[in-house]
Amino acid sequence: MKTRFITLVLLCFVTYNNAQSDEDILKTIYKTSLTNGHSYQWLDYLSNTIGGRLSGSTNAALAVQYTKSELEKLGLDKVWLQPVMVPKWVRGQQEMAYFQSSGTIHKVNICALGGSVATPEKGTKAKVIEVATYKDLEALGEENIKGKIVFINRSWEQELVNTFQAYGGCSVERYRGAAEAAQYGAVGTIVRSLSSRQDDYPHTGSMSYGDLPVVQRIPSAAISTNDAVKLSEALKNDKDLLFHFEMSCKQFEDVQSYNVIGELTGSEFPNEYMLVGGHLDSWDLGDGAHDDGAGVVQSMDVLRLLKKSGIKPKRSIRVVLFMNEENGLRGGRKYAEVAKAKNEKHVFALESDAGGFTPRGFSFDCSDLIFSKIEDWKPLFKPYLIHYFEQGRSGADIGPLKNDAIVLAGLRPDSQRYFDHHHAANDTFIHVNKRELELGAATMTALVYLMDKYGTETITNIKEIKD
Amino acid sequence: MKTRFITLVLLCFVTYNNAQSDEDILKTIYKTSLTNGHSYQWLDYLSNTIGGRLSGSTNAALAVQYTKSELEKLGLDKVWLQPVMVPKWVRGQQEMAYFQSSGTIHKVNICALGGSVATPEKGTKAKVIEVATYKDLEALGEENIKGKIVFINRSWEQELVNTFQAYGGCSVERYRGAAEAAQYGAVGTIVRSLSSRQDDYPHTGSMSYGDLPVVQRIPSAAISTNDAVKLSEALKNDKDLLFHFEMSCKQFEDVQSYNVIGELTGSEFPNEYMLVGGHLDSWDLGDGAHDDGAGVVQSMDVLRLLKKSGIKPKRSIRVVLFMNEENGLRGGRKYAEVAKAKNEKHVFALESDAGGFTPRGFSFDCSDLIFSKIEDWKPLFKPYLIHYFEQGRSGADIGPLKNDAIVLAGLRPDSQRYFDHHHAANDTFIHVNKRELELGAATMTALVYLMDKYGTETITNIKEIKD
Repeated sequence: MKTRFITLVLLCFVTYNNAQSDEDILKTIYKTSLTNGHSYQWLDYLSNTIGGRLSGSTNAALAVQYTKSELEKLGLDKVWLQPVMVPKWVRGQQEMAYFQSSGTIHKVNICALGGSVATPEKGTKAKVIEVATYKDLEALGEENIKGKIVFINRSWEQELVNTFQAYGGCSVERYRGAAEAAQYGAVGTIVRSLSSRQDDYPHTGSMSYGDLPVVQRIPSAAISTNDAVKLSEALKNDKDLLFHFEMSCKQFEDVQSYNVIGELTGSEFPNEYMLVGGHLDSWDLGDGAHDDGAGVVQSMDVLRLLKKSGIKPKRSIRVVLFMNEENGLRGGRKYAEVAKAKNEKHVFALESDAGGFTPRGFSFDCSDLIFSKIEDWKPLFKPYLIHYFEQGRSGADIGPLKNDAIVLAGLRPDSQRYFDHHHAANDTFIHVNKRELELGAATMTALVYLMDKYGTETITNIKEIKD
Repeated sequence: MKTRFITLVLLCFVTYNNAQSDEDILKTIYKTSLTNGHSYQWLDYLSNTIGGRLSGSTNAALAVQYTKSELEKLGLDKVWLQPVMVPKWVRGQQEMAYFQSSGTIHKVNICALGGSVATPEKGTKAKVIEVATYKDLEALGEENIKGKIVFINRSWEQELVNTFQAYGGCSVERYRGAAEAAQYGAVGTIVRSLSSRQDDYPHTGSMSYGDLPVVQRIPSAAISTNDAVKLSEALKNDKDLLFHFEMSCKQFEDVQSYNVIGELTGSEFPNEYMLVGGHLDSWDLGDGAHDDGAGVVQSMDVLRLLKKSGIKPKRSIRVVLFMNEENGLRGGRKYAEVAKAKNEKHVFALESDAGGFTPRGFSFDCSDLIFSKIEDWKPLFKPYLIHYFEQGRSGADIGPLKNDAIVLAGLRPDSQRYFDHHHAANDTFIHVNKRELELGAATMTALVYLMDKYGTETITNIKEIKD
């Protein structure tokens, strides 16, 4: 099996090697992106002219119009909108919070978590019970929690080099905290921001009440890491201090929105699809430049860079700008649902949704055998300092496409700064570096090029051998 | 030979393997740096309380005092100052420049290059001749240059992934431009800033008049990249436009300064030295956080992290904070001179002088044989995403130590953002990320640990085999 696989790979490399070497083509792709890329210019508009693009908002609708019109300028074979109904949650006026101890008022920075109910108009004011994780609630029980605000103060694990691991470790507190605390009679939850940094920005993000009846839902906010420390210190001296917060957020009926799709139709296998994408919606506090404006503009530039580099893909390459990743994943689910209904054969999907920082490589959701083939391409990426090829998760929006045949991949940029900005007011254009963004677009384009040239034949043939 | 070398390496690994595995020790080092590092706190003081530290300035003297006193708190075996005379060049009041075309004044952002003479008090005003490189001057000759300001507008090569390569390509224009232009009777030079970004910051840096007589020296300034484009465009429409600039910079007599040195004395081979360092001086426009405050505090933390991690080095480990890298390299030369005079055996030196960004690895200035040994350590660094192990240059300050026996190395952080800040007013603390800085300190510490444990034995033994 191993021998047959290697022979096959070699055969593919020989068969598909044309006048220009892969080294030359990657060089052209990277040079074009760094000297004549368009991703940064698109991101400037998306961030600074449009701004934050929460699902169901006017800005999200503007972003749909803008990206569709920009894709239409690229001379693709098709550009269209795919309708999808999305939730609409609105923050309302800026949140306010303070705690009161020994007669002194200490203002703190909070923001409503996405999906939270509002506080009563005059705010929620109560004593605070601090826990390290929602799992501590059970032991405390209703007698210690009822009528109080639960403060979930779970620290970021700084020793984890991959910051996504640290995020994954504590994101459950934000998502489930309120639902759990409400069961013990809490009147609100305050969750320490999921941030790798000590600063004053509260970080929003999705939360869910699960199947909690509407009347039992309690308001839930994130507090900045600096203020989490301040509050925790104050509680040590005064466990009876009072915390007050006001939020006017509201959930509306679902509204019509769209995934934005562009296609370069394949020259040999037009009915085989390779997808590259990011999500067009963002949280509302910043302008969503890193999450996920970067992924959107990089994905758009993949198709442009393929064209500019004179590459004519054999398969159809689609850019998909998904709507509603942040608080519903409706766009990703809709795309997969339609693809299945139309019996479209998707062989590869790549998502960029980890910030516009220097790319380090990819993680691949595929079999060991396929992965060992993909790893053979590593030397081609070495001049661009792309070294990270690992098996792992891909991206939330392309997840619903998963089946036995498709290879899913996620761009993996440097993760050190990502959670300084993630879902906060400082996720803004100024924090994206042009060259880093363009290197990401080039790296994605190079992988798509190689996947189109070699990958899927190999995959198909391996499957045949197996069968 | 190959076989003997491999056997030897294996033997070393066996001999020096103690209770804790290298994997465990690296884990401890990285965890300590990320959860209990001190580099960021030191950098905060150096950047925000002291500020820019140009050689010969009061700030440079304060930085000497501060770092010496901080090293003394670490419980090292020795801390001392090594006297070195340094040049003193002072910028004076902020520079001013504009060009005048069709009666309209266009202000532009310039700064004097380090070492430049001043303009006359009322400024220098003249027509401009634009060239892409100083090499074009010869063909133009005195008839086209005399009495004019030479504008060297050499573009940054954006397609080079390693930005240090792009910098190396055009730094000669800044360094030699004025000396070359003066020979053809130019009255001043304006050099496009060596920056990877289009913005309004002029970037200073060292320049030299070579052996040009004092009376022939002309003022030389850097212009921001945005203004270089603006000036070049204006020249296309009006080749007779007038450029005016005012600078009051001045070179003084050399003054007394110091390298700051701390030592952990080796337990087995106290007379073998391993050095880790950065340079304490910086340019004056920003606060020198990346260049090279980062290298200074990372190097200081290497000794602290070794102690905190319970590592007792066999050889003496020195941290050396060099003075005057930017405009003279006097500190690096002095250290090597004294080491030679005292017949101190230096076996390894590592410099961090490429910014406080996410570390990617190291470049090593050593033989192929030694390098192949060092490469064996790569898997130990994989969990920390340290992948770059290449032969190449080390660092300016440790360069004078070079001989056949020593291994020189340079930390190689991600280089994409470095030249956005380098030598400009935006090289400030706020642009350094805590985790990135701490990862760099840990990576340096891990290499020093491995070098102390294995490297030098191997080096010594290889030399013996050779002999």
